[in-house]
Amino acid sequence: MQPFIHENFLLTNPYSERLYHDYAANLPIIDFHNHLVPKDIAEDRIFGDISKLWLEGDHYKWRAMRASGINEEYITGQGSDWEKFWNWSVTVPKTLRSPLYHWTHLELNRYFGVDKLLNEKSAREIYDHCNAQAATPQFSVKNLLRKMNVEYLCTSEDPTCTLEWHKKIRGDFEIEVGAAFRPDPVLAINNGPLFRNYMEALGDATGLEIDSYKPLCQALENRHEYFHGFGTRLSDIALDWFTFSAISDRDADRIFRKVISGKAISQLECNGFRTTMLTFLCELNDDRGWVQQFHMGALRSVNTRSTADIGAACGFDAMNDVTYVGDVAKLLDSLEMRKKLARSIFFNLNPRDNAAVLTLINSFNDGLVEGKMQYGPPWWFLDQKEGIETQLNDLSSYGVLGNFIGMLTDSRSFLSFPRHEYFRRILCDVLGKDIKAGLIPFDEGLLKATVENICYFNVKRYLCIRNEALVQ
Amino acid sequence: MQPFIHENFLLTNPYSERLYHDYAANLPIIDFHNHLVPKDIAEDRIFGDISKLWLEGDHYKWRAMRASGINEEYITGQGSDWEKFWNWSVTVPKTLRSPLYHWTHLELNRYFGVDKLLNEKSAREIYDHCNAQAATPQFSVKNLLRKMNVEYLCTSEDPTCTLEWHKKIRGDFEIEVGAAFRPDPVLAINNGPLFRNYMEALGDATGLEIDSYKPLCQALENRHEYFHGFGTRLSDIALDWFTFSAISDRDADRIFRKVISGKAISQLECNGFRTTMLTFLCELNDDRGWVQQFHMGALRSVNTRSTADIGAACGFDAMNDVTYVGDVAKLLDSLEMRKKLARSIFFNLNPRDNAAVLTLINSFNDGLVEGKMQYGPPWWFLDQKEGIETQLNDLSSYGVLGNFIGMLTDSRSFLSFPRHEYFRRILCDVLGKDIKAGLIPFDEGLLKATVENICYFNVKRYLCIRNEALVQ
Amino acid sequence: MQPFIHENFLLTNPYSERLYHDYAANLPIIDFHNHLVPKDIAEDRIFGDISKLWLEGDHYKWRAMRASGINEEYITGQGSDWEKFWNWSVTVPKTLRSPLYHWTHLELNRYFGVDKLLNEKSAREIYDHCNAQAATPQFSVKNLLRKMNVEYLCTSEDPTCTLEWHKKIRGDFEIEVGAAFRPDPVLAINNGPLFRNYMEALGDATGLEIDSYKPLCQALENRHEYFHGFGTRLSDIALDWFTFSAISDRDADRIFRKVISGKAISQLECNGFRTTMLTFLCELNDDRGWVQQFHMGALRSVNTRSTADIGAACGFDAMNDVTYVGDVAKLLDSLEMRKKLARSIFFNLNPRDNAAVLTLINSFNDGLVEGKMQYGPPWWFLDQKEGIETQLNDLSSYGVLGNFIGMLTDSRSFLSFPRHEYFRRILCDVLGKDIKAGLIPFDEGLLKATVENICYFNVKRYLCIRNEALVQ
Repeated sequence: MQPFIHENFLLTNPYSERLYHDYAANLPIIDFHNHLVPKDIAEDRIFGDISKLWLEGDHYKWRAMRASGINEEYITGQGSDWEKFWNWSVTVPKTLRSPLYHWTHLELNRYFGVDKLLNEKSAREIYDHCNAQAATPQFSVKNLLRKMNVEYLCTSEDPTCTLEWHKKIRGDFEIEVGAAFRPDPVLAINNGPLFRNYMEALGDATGLEIDSYKPLCQALENRHEYFHGFGTRLSDIALDWFTFSAISDRDADRIFRKVISGKAISQLECNGFRTTMLTFLCELNDDRGWVQQFHMGALRSVNTRSTADIGAACGFDAMNDVTYVGDVAKLLDSLEMRKKLARSIFFNLNPRDNAAVLTLINSFNDGLVEGKMQYGPPWWFLDQKEGIETQLNDLSSYGVLGNFIGMLTDSRSFLSFPRHEYFRRILCDVLGKDIKAGLIPFDEGLLKATVENICYFNVKRYLCIRNEALVQ
Repeated sequence: MQPFIHENFLLTNPYSERLYHDYAANLPIIDFHNHLVPKDIAEDRIFGDISKLWLEGDHYKWRAMRASGINEEYITGQGSDWEKFWNWSVTVPKTLRSPLYHWTHLELNRYFGVDKLLNEKSAREIYDHCNAQAATPQFSVKNLLRKMNVEYLCTSEDPTCTLEWHKKIRGDFEIEVGAAFRPDPVLAINNGPLFRNYMEALGDATGLEIDSYKPLCQALENRHEYFHGFGTRLSDIALDWFTFSAISDRDADRIFRKVISGKAISQLECNGFRTTMLTFLCELNDDRGWVQQFHMGALRSVNTRSTADIGAACGFDAMNDVTYVGDVAKLLDSLEMRKKLARSIFFNLNPRDNAAVLTLINSFNDGLVEGKMQYGPPWWFLDQKEGIETQLNDLSSYGVLGNFIGMLTDSRSFLSFPRHEYFRRILCDVLGKDIKAGLIPFDEGLLKATVENICYFNVKRYLCIRNEALVQ
Repeated sequence: MQPFIHENFLLTNPYSERLYHDYAANLPIIDFHNHLVPKDIAEDRIFGDISKLWLEGDHYKWRAMRASGINEEYITGQGSDWEKFWNWSVTVPKTLRSPLYHWTHLELNRYFGVDKLLNEKSAREIYDHCNAQAATPQFSVKNLLRKMNVEYLCTSEDPTCTLEWHKKIRGDFEIEVGAAFRPDPVLAINNGPLFRNYMEALGDATGLEIDSYKPLCQALENRHEYFHGFGTRLSDIALDWFTFSAISDRDADRIFRKVISGKAISQLECNGFRTTMLTFLCELNDDRGWVQQFHMGALRSVNTRSTADIGAACGFDAMNDVTYVGDVAKLLDSLEMRKKLARSIFFNLNPRDNAAVLTLINSFNDGLVEGKMQYGPPWWFLDQKEGIETQLNDLSSYGVLGNFIGMLTDSRSFLSFPRHEYFRRILCDVLGKDIKAGLIPFDEGLLKATVENICYFNVKRYLCIRNEALVQ
């Protein structure tokens, strides 16, 4: 009997197999949005233990463990590496049909050559087998990335970041490591203390005294310029919620001063400031020819007690169900009216929003840039087989599939790069099934172009990645 | 040609067949939420006529008949048993691809051995065939439940219920019949007259004068204790809509007094009272180690005229499309902050809410109870093949399938228990298709555990059902 | 190798093939809602060039072109017919898996006998091949409709329309061309200038001075009567958004006078007026025994700049994500309470609303008319393979499939009638797959009735179309 992860995993007919092996399998990986730690890359860290490499920081796995009654001690607590690995192994069989079940076995196979299913019985053998390798130089972070044929990756960085690790990496590593500009904290004006702290940090990073709205803009402009000088052409913003409310810069300044002086603001003022600030950021992106990303619809840190005990981004987040399409429409419209709408990539977290978001953004293509308004690959909770298929189907029905810029990991783990393989297999199987059902023609040129463009060339073109130039 | 309902109905490949027949088919049924009439069980009622047994109280069928232009006289009116049966028979072919079409033929086959399709032509023959059996002792309510291998069932009861019929059943029937505590009326403070009437009923049931918030809490506590003494460990609440608004008990008392004295309250006051009351109920559940159920998102009795003419819960209800995830998040968070969040089962009626609800509740597992936060089986309008598949897929993608506690009928009909078979066949076919497509491994131990746990053992463990102890 | 569009296109098994060819293929077409230009029919226009016939007015194609970086000059601008055709041809391969890809090749084949795939390489040959035919009498508008076996079609017309072209067509064409009454502008009270202009136009059309609410009602009554006299039995209204707010006619009059005199109104006043006006229109429909259509959930003209440059309904529209089920419920309830709810067809644009809308409208069937509350076929963005399948599945699960009145084009193009074939093939394949999977029985009478009723007989009965009588 063939192992679970075999050559044609997820490929259900000869068309799918051919598309994947002939066109998709060997293309390099461009991973344009993730949360890897650049220091780990710069220092070429060797994690040493699969438990650290695999479970440290992976809140997807943590949620599944908590749901299965595993005590926090063996998830993020003081439990030993082996205890954590064992408790994860006990959980894995329950995750059947989840992305975790597939990722687990794909990663064990691709990095460690494991063929067995992970469960209570196989845990010890697999743990020992992996750890015999995990401490060797072949399992350094750079070698893990090389093994996956990564050409480019891009981490998300706060505007105050000095990019020192990114700079150390450059010239010392043939894989380009970019840094996306992610100014989320300047929108968090509803959280006064956090906002004030951040203004100080931003002041420190720029040498400006940020006591009113104008120097705040100046500071962001400086940091945007700084990132630009490093080579950044990509920005990102989290829009967990957004209400469009156009106000004057003068009003924005007034609201800013209220918050800085410790006063409370109304919801209306909050909306007004966020709209003004976001508009400013979008204009910066357009001015320098950047691409901007919008991550929409998360409901974060819903569990206050656990977030306080364990931390933010540790598995206590959800999708929101609020409506926002009309407000995002107004934002895009206000930018487009002044010809300030940069190339943009939109990610929504709640799949019920796919169709509306797709129809919205496809109303803002201007006929000047191919695929200007991009519908991003499935994000976070949506990064699973059905989520990927739904994204491909919705994009096909409400947008233009051929312009799609493809997959990313969004991950904190150096073992997550097989998610690109996972996506490519699913893409090829979706197309292969369509061929078999007569829904798309078996035209080799058409299919080759579609697969190769989505997996590699579209994103390379869209983000203007010229790897060669940067390494030399 | 084989009949429509055959041995492998819904099982589309040999894997599916094997999983169903080997692991699922013979497990007893635990039906932990339904609306059966306990008096009928206690008296071991024999309905006598299939029309009464099958069409009386089944608003799913009534809706289909009304949509097909059948006059109300032959639905809930003065029409004869035969006329009602005939009009349903005429409607059945139009319900092709609906759950009604499957249930109809499954029930005719499993209880009455009918192999033919029901339609205008076959109506008379099937009616006579069934009625020859329906008046025999084999078709008494207890024998119908025995025939389906039911081990446990649980009805929904108002806190004022004396549980007299439940008590009569106990000791006289080897199938345990539980009673879930369903205090919906105490949240209905927006309906003054109804609320005031209920306070009187609750006062009568407890001997308390409920003239302020404190005795209301005391009365609920008393009835909760009473149900607990009977053996109840399960509560249920309908959250057709919910807005979280924390207020003090003192404010709740003030609002209560306004309503009791016939005054109007604002929406804000209504939200505040409901939040306080619901929190109190949830704390009762946690204090006594109960499981609580939340049924969310119905829009009931939209058709005022027909509801007045025919009644509530007679087929004039819909799904709502309001947003509520943020508010339910705050409720759960406020409970969890005080470590008062009991084991909970969540049901949403609008399928577009599946993903958000799943991600929300999976942020509240505490690693102490396996499957603590449960995503309930498909409810009401969602109880159909696609609804079941969607629930399984969403649960697999956003939750942990292996912890799922499985199916229930939610029904008012003693003929509805084949819905468990229906669910099990669909579950096994979902898994069988996945095996065939290589999406899950053909590992017998893994598959056996998954099927058996979901169909029987998980719910038995979760609800601590120890049938043997209670009967003796 | 067989061509892409072949005899069994979209039919994936012998059951599907048989259902389509035996029952669906040869039925006439009833297209009860579209935006064809009656003047073109009356004058039997010959477009002459496929580019004009195919690309002029088709904003679905325009959106795909803009998304692919085609300059507006070659979409709606001054580019030549050939340049536009060529740019569309370049775009087509990118639309793989979209409805455009299917429609394109279906239309090229059915009207022009083209077997090749349209792309950059084949563009010139196909253009020349088609244009050799497009200028011949066989490609006149009437002949295009005859070729598709159209029996009846109905355009959407403003109440001020004289129906002069419709009258010219009648008696001179064996295909009946109806006119649906679409009074959208009277609900647009939130847009003062537009509303005031429309009141003048309506005054001109009726000879009334519309200076208060009463003559407005009178004018609408007159035009409704005028359309009725022509033979119209179908109305239509766009509910892009709707908030139910019952006010008196006196208040409606007060609000009307404010707007007419150039004053601003509040959102509350807007909602109140719209509710009163819409109720009046619905009562007109019920009084004259008409069928009314509700198109719900569009978010139109989101891109102000492009709408100003290019026009409304030119591809700058989206789906909205607002909630409205509770408000539409109140509208239907208020009508039903007074027994004024006409037969109604509901279309929602955002697919996430399917389930809730279906459960809502099925609460208003009164058992007097077969299929009284209709869930319309997939509309606009939903008119694609997955949209059609989803509509059929949702209708099957939450409604009664057998009563469905089937497909329409909603199109501005005389080449769009193969969309009926497209729908019928999908319907038959959905059923054929179900038969193969054992989900529905292979009962010929049942299947024949289901297919024929949905494709033709239900709508003919529902709209009381008696073509024969009208032509003579």
